[in-house]
Amino acid sequence: MPTKHPLPAQALDQLFREARTPNDWLPEPIPEGTVHALYDLLKWGPTSANASPARLVWVRSAEGKALLASLAMEGNRAKILAAPITVIIGHDLDFADFMPKLFPARGEMMQQWFRSPGVGEPTATRNGTLQGAYLILAARALGLDCGPMSGFDNAAVDKAFFGGTNIHSNFICSLGHGKPESIFPRNPRLSFEEAGRFA
Amino acid sequence: MPTKHPLPAQALDQLFREARTPNDWLPEPIPEGTVHALYDLLKWGPTSANASPARLVWVRSAEGKALLASLAMEGNRAKILAAPITVIIGHDLDFADFMPKLFPARGEMMQQWFRSPGVGEPTATRNGTLQGAYLILAARALGLDCGPMSGFDNAAVDKAFFGGTNIHSNFICSLGHGKPESIFPRNPRLSFEEAGRFA
Repeated sequence: MPTKHPLPAQALDQLFREARTPNDWLPEPIPEGTVHALYDLLKWGPTSANASPARLVWVRSAEGKALLASLAMEGNRAKILAAPITVIIGHDLDFADFMPKLFPARGEMMQQWFRSPGVGEPTATRNGTLQGAYLILAARALGLDCGPMSGFDNAAVDKAFFGGTNIHSNFICSLGHGKPESIFPRNPRLSFEEAGRFA
Repeated sequence: MPTKHPLPAQALDQLFREARTPNDWLPEPIPEGTVHALYDLLKWGPTSANASPARLVWVRSAEGKALLASLAMEGNRAKILAAPITVIIGHDLDFADFMPKLFPARGEMMQQWFRSPGVGEPTATRNGTLQGAYLILAARALGLDCGPMSGFDNAAVDKAFFGGTNIHSNFICSLGHGKPESIFPRNPRLSFEEAGRFA
Protein backbone atom coordinates (compact mmCIF):
# COMPACT_ATOMS: atom_id res chain seq x y z
CA MET A 1 0.00 0.00 0.00
CA PRO A 2 2.18 2.88 -1.25
CA THR A 3 1.37 6.43 -0.21
CA LYS A 4 -1.56 7.54 -2.27
CA HIS A 5 -2.09 10.93 -3.83
CA PRO A 6 -5.24 12.67 -5.00
CA LEU A 7 -6.27 11.61 -8.50
CA PRO A 8 -5.64 14.16 -11.25
CA ALA A 9 -8.23 16.93 -11.55
CA GLN A 10 -9.51 15.45 -14.80
CA ALA A 11 -10.40 12.19 -13.04
CA LEU A 12 -12.22 14.05 -10.24
CA ASP A 13 -14.10 15.99 -12.91
CA GLN A 14 -15.13 12.82 -14.73
CA LEU A 15 -16.25 11.05 -11.54
CA PHE A 16 -17.91 13.93 -9.72
CA ARG A 17 -17.56 17.54 -10.76
CA GLU A 18 -18.52 17.38 -14.42
CA ALA A 19 -20.51 14.15 -14.46
CA ARG A 20 -24.14 14.78 -15.29
CA THR A 21 -27.32 12.72 -15.64
CA PRO A 22 -28.56 12.71 -19.23
CA ASN A 23 -32.24 12.41 -20.08
CA ASP A 24 -31.78 10.92 -23.53
CA TRP A 25 -29.26 8.50 -24.98
CA LEU A 26 -27.20 7.94 -28.08
CA PRO A 27 -27.90 4.57 -29.69
CA GLU A 28 -24.33 3.19 -29.53
CA PRO A 29 -24.36 -0.18 -27.77
CA ILE A 30 -22.15 -0.96 -24.77
CA PRO A 31 -19.78 -3.84 -25.57
CA GLU A 32 -20.35 -6.89 -23.37
CA GLY A 33 -16.71 -6.67 -22.29
CA THR A 34 -17.37 -3.21 -20.86
CA VAL A 35 -20.19 -4.57 -18.72
CA HIS A 36 -17.87 -7.26 -17.37
CA ALA A 37 -15.14 -4.65 -16.77
CA LEU A 38 -17.70 -2.54 -14.90
CA TYR A 39 -18.69 -5.45 -12.68
CA ASP A 40 -15.02 -6.28 -12.11
CA LEU A 41 -14.55 -2.80 -10.65
CA LEU A 42 -17.70 -2.38 -8.60
CA LYS A 43 -17.38 -5.81 -6.99
CA TRP A 44 -14.34 -4.59 -5.02
CA GLY A 45 -16.24 -1.86 -3.19
CA PRO A 46 -16.54 -2.52 0.55
CA THR A 47 -19.62 -4.20 2.04
CA SER A 48 -20.38 -5.45 5.57
CA ALA A 49 -18.31 -8.60 6.06
CA ASN A 50 -17.93 -8.70 2.27
CA ALA A 51 -21.58 -9.77 2.08
CA SER A 52 -22.00 -8.34 -1.45
CA PRO A 53 -25.82 -8.56 -1.51
CA ALA A 54 -26.39 -6.63 -4.77
CA ARG A 55 -27.89 -8.56 -7.66
CA LEU A 56 -27.85 -7.00 -11.10
CA VAL A 57 -30.01 -7.55 -14.17
CA TRP A 58 -28.45 -5.86 -17.19
CA VAL A 59 -31.46 -5.19 -19.41
CA ARG A 60 -30.33 -4.79 -23.02
CA SER A 61 -32.71 -6.83 -25.23
CA ALA A 62 -35.61 -5.13 -26.97
CA GLU A 63 -38.02 -7.38 -25.05
CA GLY A 64 -36.33 -6.69 -21.72
CA LYS A 65 -36.37 -2.94 -22.27
CA ALA A 66 -40.02 -2.96 -23.32
CA LEU A 67 -40.97 -4.96 -20.22
CA LEU A 68 -38.99 -2.74 -17.85
CA ALA A 69 -40.27 0.43 -19.49
CA SER A 70 -43.86 -0.80 -19.12
CA LEU A 71 -43.29 -1.06 -15.33
CA ALA A 72 -41.71 2.40 -14.99
CA MET A 73 -43.23 5.82 -14.40
CA GLU A 74 -44.28 7.44 -17.63
CA GLY A 75 -41.46 9.99 -17.53
CA ASN A 76 -38.86 7.23 -17.40
CA ARG A 77 -40.15 4.99 -20.22
CA ALA A 78 -38.54 6.71 -23.20
CA LYS A 79 -35.19 6.83 -21.37
CA ILE A 80 -35.25 3.08 -20.72
CA LEU A 81 -36.14 2.35 -24.34
CA ALA A 82 -33.41 4.66 -25.66
CA ALA A 83 -30.51 3.63 -23.41
CA PRO A 84 -28.38 0.70 -24.62
CA ILE A 85 -28.58 -0.88 -21.15
CA THR A 86 -30.62 -0.20 -18.04
CA VAL A 87 -29.41 -2.21 -15.07
CA ILE A 88 -31.77 -3.22 -12.27
CA ILE A 89 -29.96 -3.03 -8.93
CA GLY A 90 -31.54 -5.43 -6.46
CA HIS A 91 -30.43 -7.02 -3.21
CA ASP A 92 -30.82 -10.64 -2.22
CA LEU A 93 -32.42 -11.18 1.19
CA ASP A 94 -30.84 -14.66 1.02
CA PHE A 95 -27.35 -13.19 0.57
CA ALA A 96 -26.14 -15.06 3.67
CA ASP A 97 -26.12 -18.27 1.60
CA PHE A 98 -22.86 -17.07 0.00
CA MET A 99 -21.03 -16.18 3.23
CA PRO A 100 -18.88 -19.34 3.32
CA LYS A 101 -17.53 -18.31 -0.09
CA LEU A 102 -17.35 -14.59 0.65
CA PHE A 103 -15.83 -14.71 4.14
CA PRO A 104 -13.99 -18.04 4.36
CA ALA A 105 -12.42 -17.31 7.77
CA ARG A 106 -15.78 -16.92 9.54
CA GLY A 107 -18.37 -17.91 6.96
CA GLU A 108 -20.61 -20.04 9.17
CA MET A 109 -20.57 -17.50 11.99
CA MET A 110 -21.40 -14.58 9.69
CA GLN A 111 -24.09 -16.66 8.03
CA GLN A 112 -25.78 -17.27 11.37
CA TRP A 113 -25.45 -13.59 12.29
CA PHE A 114 -26.96 -12.36 9.03
CA ARG A 115 -29.81 -14.86 9.40
CA SER A 116 -30.73 -13.64 12.89
CA PRO A 117 -33.95 -11.60 13.15
CA GLY A 118 -33.73 -7.97 12.08
CA VAL A 119 -30.19 -8.20 10.73
CA GLY A 120 -30.42 -9.51 7.17
CA GLU A 121 -32.88 -7.05 5.65
CA PRO A 122 -31.15 -3.78 6.67
CA THR A 123 -27.78 -5.31 5.79
CA ALA A 124 -29.03 -6.27 2.32
CA THR A 125 -30.64 -2.88 1.75
CA ARG A 126 -27.72 -0.79 3.00
CA ASN A 127 -25.00 -2.74 1.28
CA GLY A 128 -26.91 -3.36 -1.92
CA THR A 129 -27.44 0.40 -2.15
CA LEU A 130 -23.75 1.08 -1.55
CA GLN A 131 -22.97 -1.33 -4.36
CA GLY A 132 -25.41 0.55 -6.58
CA ALA A 133 -23.40 3.72 -5.97
CA TYR A 134 -20.16 1.84 -6.66
CA LEU A 135 -21.73 0.83 -9.96
CA ILE A 136 -22.52 4.46 -10.83
CA LEU A 137 -19.00 5.65 -10.08
CA ALA A 138 -17.34 2.64 -11.73
CA ALA A 139 -19.37 3.31 -14.86
CA ARG A 140 -18.26 6.92 -14.86
CA ALA A 141 -14.68 5.80 -14.28
CA LEU A 142 -15.00 3.76 -17.47
CA GLY A 143 -16.29 6.76 -19.41
CA LEU A 144 -20.00 5.87 -19.37
CA ASP A 145 -22.85 8.15 -18.41
CA CYS A 146 -25.40 7.08 -15.80
CA GLY A 147 -29.09 7.78 -15.43
CA PRO A 148 -30.25 6.42 -12.06
CA MET A 149 -34.01 6.27 -11.49
CA SER A 150 -36.32 5.13 -8.72
CA GLY A 151 -39.61 5.83 -10.47
CA PHE A 152 -40.93 2.34 -11.23
CA ASP A 153 -43.18 -0.32 -9.71
CA ASN A 154 -40.81 -2.27 -7.47
CA ALA A 155 -43.19 -5.15 -6.78
CA ALA A 156 -43.93 -5.61 -10.48
CA VAL A 157 -40.23 -5.46 -11.39
CA ASP A 158 -39.47 -8.04 -8.70
CA LYS A 159 -42.10 -10.36 -10.15
CA ALA A 160 -40.96 -9.83 -13.74
CA PHE A 161 -37.18 -9.98 -13.25
CA PHE A 162 -36.55 -11.64 -9.87
CA GLY A 163 -39.42 -14.16 -9.81
CA GLY A 164 -38.82 -17.25 -7.66
CA THR A 165 -36.07 -15.55 -5.67
CA ASN A 166 -35.83 -13.45 -2.54
CA ILE A 167 -34.25 -10.55 -4.46
CA HIS A 168 -35.87 -7.11 -4.14
CA SER A 169 -35.33 -4.33 -6.66
CA ASN A 170 -33.87 -1.11 -5.29
CA PHE A 171 -33.29 1.32 -8.15
CA ILE A 172 -32.50 1.17 -11.86
CA CYS A 173 -29.76 2.93 -13.80
CA SER A 174 -29.49 3.55 -17.52
CA LEU A 175 -25.96 3.31 -18.91
CA GLY A 176 -24.45 4.52 -22.16
CA HIS A 177 -23.51 7.79 -23.76
CA GLY A 178 -25.99 10.56 -23.09
CA LYS A 179 -27.12 13.18 -25.55
CA PRO A 180 -25.46 16.37 -24.32
CA GLU A 181 -28.49 18.47 -25.21
CA SER A 182 -30.69 16.33 -22.93
CA ILE A 183 -28.94 17.51 -19.78
CA PHE A 184 -30.80 19.95 -17.55
CA PRO A 185 -29.08 22.94 -15.90
CA ARG A 186 -27.25 21.83 -12.78
CA ASN A 187 -29.07 22.31 -9.49
CA PRO A 188 -27.37 23.75 -6.38
CA ARG A 189 -25.99 21.55 -3.63
CA LEU A 190 -26.08 22.00 0.14
CA SER A 191 -23.14 23.82 1.69
CA PHE A 192 -20.74 21.92 3.94
CA GLU A 193 -22.43 23.49 6.96
CA GLU A 194 -25.96 22.73 5.78
CA ALA A 195 -25.03 19.07 5.33
CA GLY A 196 -23.10 18.57 8.56
CA ARG A 197 -20.56 19.67 11.12
CA PHE A 198 -17.38 18.72 12.92
CA ALA A 199 -17.63 17.15 16.38
CA MET B 1 -19.58 17.03 -22.43
CA PRO B 2 -16.57 15.84 -24.43
CA THR B 3 -16.17 12.13 -25.20
CA LYS B 4 -14.98 10.44 -22.05
CA HIS B 5 -12.40 7.70 -21.80
CA PRO B 6 -11.72 5.15 -19.09
CA LEU B 7 -9.58 6.57 -16.29
CA PRO B 8 -5.97 5.38 -16.21
CA ALA B 9 -5.38 1.96 -14.64
CA GLN B 10 -3.71 3.57 -11.63
CA ALA B 11 -6.89 5.52 -10.85
CA LEU B 12 -9.06 2.39 -11.14
CA ASP B 13 -6.61 0.62 -8.81
CA GLN B 14 -6.78 3.41 -6.24
CA LEU B 15 -10.58 3.60 -6.34
CA PHE B 16 -11.44 -0.09 -6.56
CA ARG B 17 -8.91 -2.78 -7.34
CA GLU B 18 -6.21 -2.05 -4.77
CA ALA B 19 -8.23 -0.10 -2.21
CA ARG B 20 -8.46 -1.97 1.07
CA THR B 21 -10.12 -1.45 4.46
CA PRO B 22 -7.49 -1.01 7.20
CA ASN B 23 -8.13 -2.09 10.78
CA ASP B 24 -5.71 0.33 12.41
CA TRP B 25 -4.70 3.88 11.60
CA LEU B 26 -1.64 6.08 11.50
CA PRO B 27 -1.97 9.14 13.75
CA GLU B 28 -1.49 11.80 11.04
CA PRO B 29 -4.44 14.21 11.13
CA ILE B 30 -6.55 15.03 8.07
CA PRO B 31 -6.31 18.74 7.22
CA GLU B 32 -9.66 20.51 7.49
CA GLY B 33 -9.24 21.60 3.87
CA THR B 34 -9.20 17.95 2.81
CA VAL B 35 -12.53 17.34 4.54
CA HIS B 36 -14.03 20.28 2.68
CA ALA B 37 -12.51 19.04 -0.59
CA LEU B 38 -14.04 15.63 0.11
CA TYR B 39 -17.47 17.12 0.69
CA ASP B 40 -17.09 19.25 -2.44
CA LEU B 41 -16.66 16.06 -4.46
CA LEU B 42 -19.26 13.78 -2.88
CA LYS B 43 -21.97 16.47 -2.99
CA TRP B 44 -22.09 16.18 -6.80
CA GLY B 45 -23.12 12.51 -6.80
CA PRO B 46 -26.63 11.96 -8.14
CA THR B 47 -29.64 11.68 -5.79
CA SER B 48 -33.38 11.50 -6.47
CA ALA B 49 -34.45 14.98 -7.61
CA ASN B 50 -31.18 16.25 -6.09
CA ALA B 51 -32.69 15.66 -2.65
CA SER B 52 -29.26 15.19 -1.03
CA PRO B 53 -30.58 13.77 2.28
CA ALA B 54 -27.20 12.74 3.76
CA ARG B 55 -26.09 14.55 6.91
CA LEU B 56 -22.51 14.13 8.07
CA VAL B 57 -20.89 14.51 11.47
CA TRP B 58 -17.11 14.52 11.12
CA VAL B 59 -15.96 13.26 14.52
CA ARG B 60 -12.39 14.37 15.16
CA SER B 61 -12.18 15.71 18.73
CA ALA B 62 -10.96 13.47 21.55
CA GLU B 63 -14.34 13.87 23.28
CA GLY B 64 -16.29 13.11 20.12
CA LYS B 65 -14.24 9.99 19.38
CA ALA B 66 -14.59 8.73 22.96
CA LEU B 67 -18.36 9.23 22.83
CA LEU B 68 -18.76 7.54 19.45
CA ALA B 69 -16.45 4.67 20.46
CA SER B 70 -18.49 4.10 23.62
CA LEU B 71 -21.58 3.55 21.44
CA ALA B 72 -19.86 1.15 19.03
CA MET B 73 -19.40 -2.61 19.11
CA GLU B 74 -16.36 -3.60 21.08
CA GLY B 75 -14.40 -4.62 17.97
CA ASN B 76 -14.82 -1.15 16.46
CA ARG B 77 -13.83 1.00 19.47
CA ALA B 78 -10.06 1.00 19.06
CA LYS B 79 -10.42 1.83 15.35
CA ILE B 80 -12.60 4.86 16.10
CA LEU B 81 -10.16 6.10 18.74
CA ALA B 82 -7.15 5.61 16.45
CA ALA B 83 -8.52 7.12 13.23
CA PRO B 84 -8.05 10.89 12.78
CA ILE B 85 -11.70 11.24 11.75
CA THR B 86 -14.71 8.95 11.82
CA VAL B 87 -17.66 10.39 9.95
CA ILE B 88 -21.23 9.51 10.89
CA ILE B 89 -23.36 9.22 7.74
CA GLY B 90 -26.98 9.95 8.57
CA HIS B 91 -30.03 10.94 6.53
CA ASP B 92 -32.53 13.63 7.36
CA LEU B 93 -36.17 12.50 7.25
CA ASP B 94 -36.97 16.23 6.94
CA PHE B 95 -34.81 16.56 3.82
CA ALA B 96 -37.80 17.86 1.86
CA ASP B 97 -37.44 21.19 3.67
CA PHE B 98 -34.49 21.97 1.37
CA MET B 99 -36.20 21.13 -1.93
CA PRO B 100 -36.91 24.75 -2.93
CA LYS B 101 -33.16 25.36 -2.74
CA LEU B 102 -32.14 22.01 -4.24
CA PHE B 103 -34.62 21.85 -7.13
CA PRO B 104 -35.60 25.45 -7.90
CA ALA B 105 -37.63 24.57 -11.01
CA ARG B 106 -40.05 22.32 -9.11
CA GLY B 107 -39.18 22.76 -5.45
CA GLU B 108 -42.69 23.06 -4.04
CA MET B 109 -43.97 20.14 -6.08
CA MET B 110 -41.08 17.87 -5.10
CA GLN B 111 -41.46 18.94 -1.49
CA GLN B 112 -45.10 17.86 -1.48
CA TRP B 113 -44.21 14.59 -3.17
CA PHE B 114 -41.45 13.74 -0.70
CA ARG B 115 -43.76 14.59 2.20
CA SER B 116 -46.49 12.23 1.00
CA PRO B 117 -46.94 9.01 3.01
CA GLY B 118 -44.42 6.25 2.39
CA VAL B 119 -42.18 8.32 0.10
CA GLY B 120 -39.82 10.31 2.32
CA GLU B 121 -38.31 7.55 4.43
CA PRO B 122 -37.21 5.18 1.63
CA THR B 123 -35.98 8.16 -0.39
CA ALA B 124 -33.90 9.40 2.54
CA THR B 125 -32.52 5.94 3.26
CA ARG B 126 -31.69 5.04 -0.34
CA ASN B 127 -30.16 8.35 -1.30
CA GLY B 128 -28.37 8.92 1.99
CA THR B 129 -26.76 5.51 1.53
CA LEU B 130 -25.76 6.33 -2.06
CA GLN B 131 -24.14 9.51 -0.74
CA GLY B 132 -22.28 7.44 1.85
CA ALA B 133 -20.79 5.39 -0.97
CA TYR B 134 -19.93 8.57 -2.88
CA LEU B 135 -18.10 9.67 0.28
CA ILE B 136 -16.08 6.43 0.37
CA LEU B 137 -15.04 6.71 -3.26
CA ALA B 138 -14.38 10.45 -3.07
CA ALA B 139 -12.13 9.84 -0.06
CA ARG B 140 -10.22 7.20 -1.99
CA ALA B 141 -10.00 9.54 -4.96
CA LEU B 142 -8.30 12.04 -2.64
CA GLY B 143 -5.81 9.41 -1.45
CA LEU B 144 -7.45 8.59 1.89
CA ASP B 145 -8.24 5.13 3.22
CA CYS B 146 -11.75 4.28 4.43
CA GLY B 147 -12.99 2.00 7.17
CA PRO B 148 -16.79 1.79 6.91
CA MET B 149 -18.59 0.15 9.86
CA SER B 150 -22.18 -0.60 10.80
CA GLY B 151 -21.50 -2.13 14.22
CA PHE B 152 -22.80 0.53 16.61
CA ASP B 153 -25.96 1.45 18.51
CA ASN B 154 -27.88 3.54 15.98
CA ALA B 155 -30.49 4.85 18.44
CA ALA B 156 -27.81 5.92 20.93
CA VAL B 157 -25.75 7.61 18.19
CA ASP B 158 -28.86 9.42 16.98
CA LYS B 159 -29.51 10.70 20.49
CA ALA B 160 -25.88 11.71 21.08
CA PHE B 161 -25.09 13.30 17.70
CA PHE B 162 -28.43 14.08 16.04
CA GLY B 163 -30.52 15.04 19.10
CA GLY B 164 -33.43 17.40 18.42
CA THR B 165 -33.46 16.55 14.70
CA ASN B 166 -35.13 14.00 12.47
CA ILE B 167 -31.76 12.68 11.27
CA HIS B 168 -31.10 8.93 11.56
CA SER B 169 -27.61 7.45 11.54
CA ASN B 170 -26.91 4.92 8.80
CA PHE B 171 -23.27 3.85 9.01
CA ILE B 172 -19.95 5.30 10.13
CA CYS B 173 -16.65 5.48 8.27
CA SER B 174 -13.16 6.04 9.62
CA LEU B 175 -10.93 8.13 7.38
CA GLY B 176 -7.17 8.61 7.30
CA HIS B 177 -4.11 6.62 6.39
CA GLY B 178 -4.32 2.99 7.41
CA LYS B 179 -1.50 0.91 8.83
CA PRO B 180 -0.63 -1.47 5.99
CA GLU B 181 0.01 -4.33 8.41
CA SER B 182 -3.55 -4.04 9.75
CA ILE B 183 -5.11 -5.16 6.47
CA PHE B 184 -6.58 -8.66 6.34
CA PRO B 185 -6.12 -10.94 3.32
CA ARG B 186 -8.61 -10.05 0.63
CA ASN B 187 -11.79 -12.11 0.46
CA PRO B 188 -13.22 -13.47 -2.80
CA ARG B 189 -16.00 -11.74 -4.67
CA LEU B 190 -19.01 -13.17 -6.50
CA SER B 191 -18.57 -13.91 -10.18
CA PHE B 192 -20.47 -11.85 -12.75
CA GLU B 193 -22.90 -14.75 -13.17
CA GLU B 194 -23.41 -15.28 -9.43
CA ALA B 195 -24.29 -11.59 -9.04
CA GLY B 196 -26.54 -11.22 -12.04
CA ARG B 197 -27.42 -11.78 -15.68
CA PHE B 198 -28.26 -10.10 -18.95
CA ALA B 199 -31.92 -9.76 -19.92
